[in-house]
Amino acid sequence: MNFKIDNLQYCKWDRSVFEINREAGLDAVHVTIVYHEDFDELQQRILEWKTHFKNNDDLIFLGKDFRDIEKANKNNKTAIFFGFQNCSPIEDDINLIEKVHEQGCRFMQLTYNNQSLLASGCYEKVDSGVTNFGKEAIKEMNRVGIVIDMSHSGEKSTLDAIELSQKPIAITHSNPNFWHKAKRNKSDDLLKTLSQSGGMLGFSLYPHHLKDNSNCKLDNFCEMVARTAEIMDIKNLGIGSDLCLNQPDEIVEWMRNGTWTKKKVYGEGTLNNVGFPDQPSWFKDARGFKNIESGLKKIGFNLDEINGILGNNWYNFYKGIN
Amino acid sequence: MNFKIDNLQYCKWDRSVFEINREAGLDAVHVTIVYHEDFDELQQRILEWKTHFKNNDDLIFLGKDFRDIEKANKNNKTAIFFGFQNCSPIEDDINLIEKVHEQGCRFMQLTYNNQSLLASGCYEKVDSGVTNFGKEAIKEMNRVGIVIDMSHSGEKSTLDAIELSQKPIAITHSNPNFWHKAKRNKSDDLLKTLSQSGGMLGFSLYPHHLKDNSNCKLDNFCEMVARTAEIMDIKNLGIGSDLCLNQPDEIVEWMRNGTWTKKKVYGEGTLNNVGFPDQPSWFKDARGFKNIESGLKKIGFNLDEINGILGNNWYNFYKGIN
Repeated sequence: MNFKIDNLQYCKWDRSVFEINREAGLDAVHVTIVYHEDFDELQQRILEWKTHFKNNDDLIFLGKDFRDIEKANKNNKTAIFFGFQNCSPIEDDINLIEKVHEQGCRFMQLTYNNQSLLASGCYEKVDSGVTNFGKEAIKEMNRVGIVIDMSHSGEKSTLDAIELSQKPIAITHSNPNFWHKAKRNKSDDLLKTLSQSGGMLGFSLYPHHLKDNSNCKLDNFCEMVARTAEIMDIKNLGIGSDLCLNQPDEIVEWMRNGTWTKKKVYGEGTLNNVGFPDQPSWFKDARGFKNIESGLKKIGFNLDEINGILGNNWYNFYKGIN
Repeated sequence: MNFKIDNLQYCKWDRSVFEINREAGLDAVHVTIVYHEDFDELQQRILEWKTHFKNNDDLIFLGKDFRDIEKANKNNKTAIFFGFQNCSPIEDDINLIEKVHEQGCRFMQLTYNNQSLLASGCYEKVDSGVTNFGKEAIKEMNRVGIVIDMSHSGEKSTLDAIELSQKPIAITHSNPNFWHKAKRNKSDDLLKTLSQSGGMLGFSLYPHHLKDNSNCKLDNFCEMVARTAEIMDIKNLGIGSDLCLNQPDEIVEWMRNGTWTKKKVYGEGTLNNVGFPDQPSWFKDARGFKNIESGLKKIGFNLDEINGILGNNWYNFYKGIN
């Protein structure tokens, strides 16, 4: 059985997005439900998702483990897996890790760009690695079954997390630095270590992570995938599109500024380019999986390899979460 | 006019402690009102203090600035200045800095032993210095008038804070490392830089910070003060006794463990020495200020210098807070 999985989207969720994801044949999507929200604010986001599930039960349901990906495939639905882009919902309390797992959380970033209580983000000047609390949190995430996601973390923190975690970690949405230099993209060394530890890389389709940004060519993207497969085991590659359909500019501002600064910071954007950049023409939304499929074929991947990248590799990774 | 100030106590507060502090002639005490509490939990602590002020208005009142030290002196009362030993009450929100200032906060540590969102604690393996959020927080603390207290921070974080802060910072309760090596004590270099920037050191009387711990001799302590006065300007020296009268062992456990670990950590204690150590015989409580006064005289300080160390230096520092 083949599965299609997009392992990171943070769209403005409504029926139209769920329909597009179904049209794209996605069996599972890891969705970002919080950026900087604390535990109480998380409860609000979960209530909103309960409404989504109720109103769209012909299209989506809450995924708990890999069996739900199989179930989704069988029933032509999309299993939704909850994830956090910051560790803010667990606040400073290790006991909240089990609670958020019970509420559906399956992926949690240790940091979002800035320093967190657990590790350093990729926008900090100095990366001190995983902290005392971070070490305890990793053990607890391993125990309850929440994947450690280091997409927005610094390099030392990520290497620490790989070493400390008893289970493979993930970089759900990022690209290699050799292709496009960006604070959010990753070095060859890190990708090698990630792969050797059984960890996954989800290729991002977010323009700031792409060579030539919005003008990135499909062939060029697929060439990058092929070169990454020379560094990492191809079984550790997947997609984490970082799609942000229909999001207003306020959301990107919330992501970047949270409540930690009184001045505006622009993150991957600039003063003259504050909002969301345009998606490349061949990946306007998840239906672009088809184009990636063609591109990967053209560059010489075989069917097994392509199916792996488009979802089977993530499916196998999900099998090891719990 | 001479003032007596103890610039750090975290006792189990009740009338008996306020009476002792009055007996000791303290015009002002900087009291720790939270360790790891968040903003909502802080509200609870403030309510408890409102009750203390109401029930003991013949002994104490809430201090807002240096004028309240003068007022206390005139009225034979003790002005109580609120402080936090961790930045947890501002959570991840820079706007809470102004709010906690309005509620009386005048000192805030950027960290308590572990990494915080603002800086690294002295118990972290790597100290990455003041973070992105930390830089913004320092600006805001300067603006509203909250002193940056680095007693429990790492060395690089402290040097960063001294450099970044537009106003002098404080190490309210700590001793020099040359005298007694401890994670919480400070290097000569740091103390020199602190003094050159106009920052204050409050000598701690907490046994874990003292040579020979509970058996520390008064003469030895005063000798250390004299040696510190060769490194730092004597005008930058004061007392921050770190007194913890009547606290049960649960409190030291809360201080050390907060909610960040499931295993027990012992901080400055050990498995066989979990609770609070005994105070040295000559500083059982604030009435020991008298003994320190004698000791400093004996070691050769003049009256001005002694009055400076016992309170006038802190009084002058308070003048610059707002």
